[in-house]
Amino acid sequence: MSIEKVAIIGLGLLGGSIGLAVKARAPDIAITGYDADPAVRAKATARGLTDTVFESAADAVRHADLVILCVPVGAMREAAAGIADVLPPHAIVSDVGSSKQSVADDLAASLPGAIVIPAHPVAGTEQSGPEAGFATLFVNRWCILTPSAGVDEASVEALAEFWRKLGARIEIMDPQHHDLVLAVTSHIPHLIAYTIVGTASDLEEVTQGEVIKYSAGGFRDFTRIAASDPTMWRDVFLHNKVAVLEMLGRFTEDLTALQRAIRSGDGDALHELFSRTRAIRRGIIQEGQDDPSPDFGRGH
Amino acid sequence: MSIEKVAIIGLGLLGGSIGLAVKARAPDIAITGYDADPAVRAKATARGLTDTVFESAADAVRHADLVILCVPVGAMREAAAGIADVLPPHAIVSDVGSSKQSVADDLAASLPGAIVIPAHPVAGTEQSGPEAGFATLFVNRWCILTPSAGVDEASVEALAEFWRKLGARIEIMDPQHHDLVLAVTSHIPHLIAYTIVGTASDLEEVTQGEVIKYSAGGFRDFTRIAASDPTMWRDVFLHNKVAVLEMLGRFTEDLTALQRAIRSGDGDALHELFSRTRAIRRGIIQEGQDDPSPDFGRGH
Repeated sequence: MSIEKVAIIGLGLLGGSIGLAVKARAPDIAITGYDADPAVRAKATARGLTDTVFESAADAVRHADLVILCVPVGAMREAAAGIADVLPPHAIVSDVGSSKQSVADDLAASLPGAIVIPAHPVAGTEQSGPEAGFATLFVNRWCILTPSAGVDEASVEALAEFWRKLGARIEIMDPQHHDLVLAVTSHIPHLIAYTIVGTASDLEEVTQGEVIKYSAGGFRDFTRIAASDPTMWRDVFLHNKVAVLEMLGRFTEDLTALQRAIRSGDGDALHELFSRTRAIRRGIIQEGQDDPSPDFGRGH
Repeated sequence: MSIEKVAIIGLGLLGGSIGLAVKARAPDIAITGYDADPAVRAKATARGLTDTVFESAADAVRHADLVILCVPVGAMREAAAGIADVLPPHAIVSDVGSSKQSVADDLAASLPGAIVIPAHPVAGTEQSGPEAGFATLFVNRWCILTPSAGVDEASVEALAEFWRKLGARIEIMDPQHHDLVLAVTSHIPHLIAYTIVGTASDLEEVTQGEVIKYSAGGFRDFTRIAASDPTMWRDVFLHNKVAVLEMLGRFTEDLTALQRAIRSGDGDALHELFSRTRAIRRGIIQEGQDDPSPDFGRGH
């Protein structure tokens, strides 16, 4: 099978970037779009995020081979229900959400019998909305597919090929494992970034002006992640609760051990940890997942 | 008084950047250097980090108006003791360490009667060593001076003027307050970055290869900070113990509250925090302390 018509539901950073990437890198594919917010639809039309932006989800998906739901994971069930009556039987339904078991459950509930392949392109920025997308967002980033039981291999391969055209690399795993892996590589990092920025905002002994002025000591890095979309991230934590709480427990144990090392003046334990964490960054740079320049290449 | 001859003890990222910045922005100032490591001295000579690199600290400081100790805070006392016999009486002694009360104590102990003005330019990258420095590191960054009791205003102003020539902005505060502010804007961020990278390395259910592949979900940001110099950071935590443990306690309380909100499904509490943390990032960008581009301006 071949994907020739794609419908995007939700035209924020991810949906908009898919639209722009299709237009730039796979121009033979026709792409339609819809967003529940009229203001977003107007901006998406103005930026040309998809060939056409429709006034209803039904009109956007009516002729699609592939529908990608690009909405917060808490809105998946309703977004899927909204297209159930008009979804072509041969169409693949996918998404870009950051939790995969909850999405698999919600899409199965709203679209019984449909070809459901949840997906998660591990890519993004702290920006959101229809102005934030760009065509190269997925280049050299991994897109994880978590096909539901019974989905045929040809459909999985068709979706994989679509993402490869956008520059992504493909991995297939089961949704529970995805949720555990992403809890540690994405969800816990966001949670602790939000937390430290909140902690710093609430201090009485240190003013917000001081926090801002001296943020180049490391804090500013965390504020980028903590500027991410609040609704998206609220939903991630509510829908990947088990894995997030599990990984948070591990993190807290490790932090408590470091706290004890500081209190007791155990410099060797600190030095040992601080030395071995360098290896992972080298791996990330070798694998092309981050900029090798000092300070992320920030201008100096 | 006017600073015409500067000696740098320790020619890593900070010491090297001061040398290069002086040569680029204040070429009338003569600058000498020394590092305890012969290999670092050789590289410093090859890169021309200072006008002259001497084979002993005594030779480097013998004629200086200003001596800047650019060594880990745990090495301050010994580094200061090593120049006590030859330090000119009129010379200002300063440093670039990340804790200030411990440095004030150590310099006072090793250099009784000297003009001691501890300082902390809040600037750096995750790189270290004599190859890592560059002349613009301090531009638009804040340099905090914590003059010891009894130091004359003219000396403080002379040091401030030196840092302004290198592009820095100046703030004066007492060392205890510095240590509290930097605990939250620098030390705790480094501690939790080191911790999460360690946690991710140690998981059995998630491979290191998976952590690396999917690091673009947020984790990779933390690996930059966690690639910082282990000796420098061990010393920071051992020498700013009280403030770090105090701020770590606040952070842990806030994280526990979020954990409870996730467990109980309190989406409103999550959304409220995730919304208000955006304001601090806007402040940081307005104040010129971070790149306004999405994703720190990483190439896409």
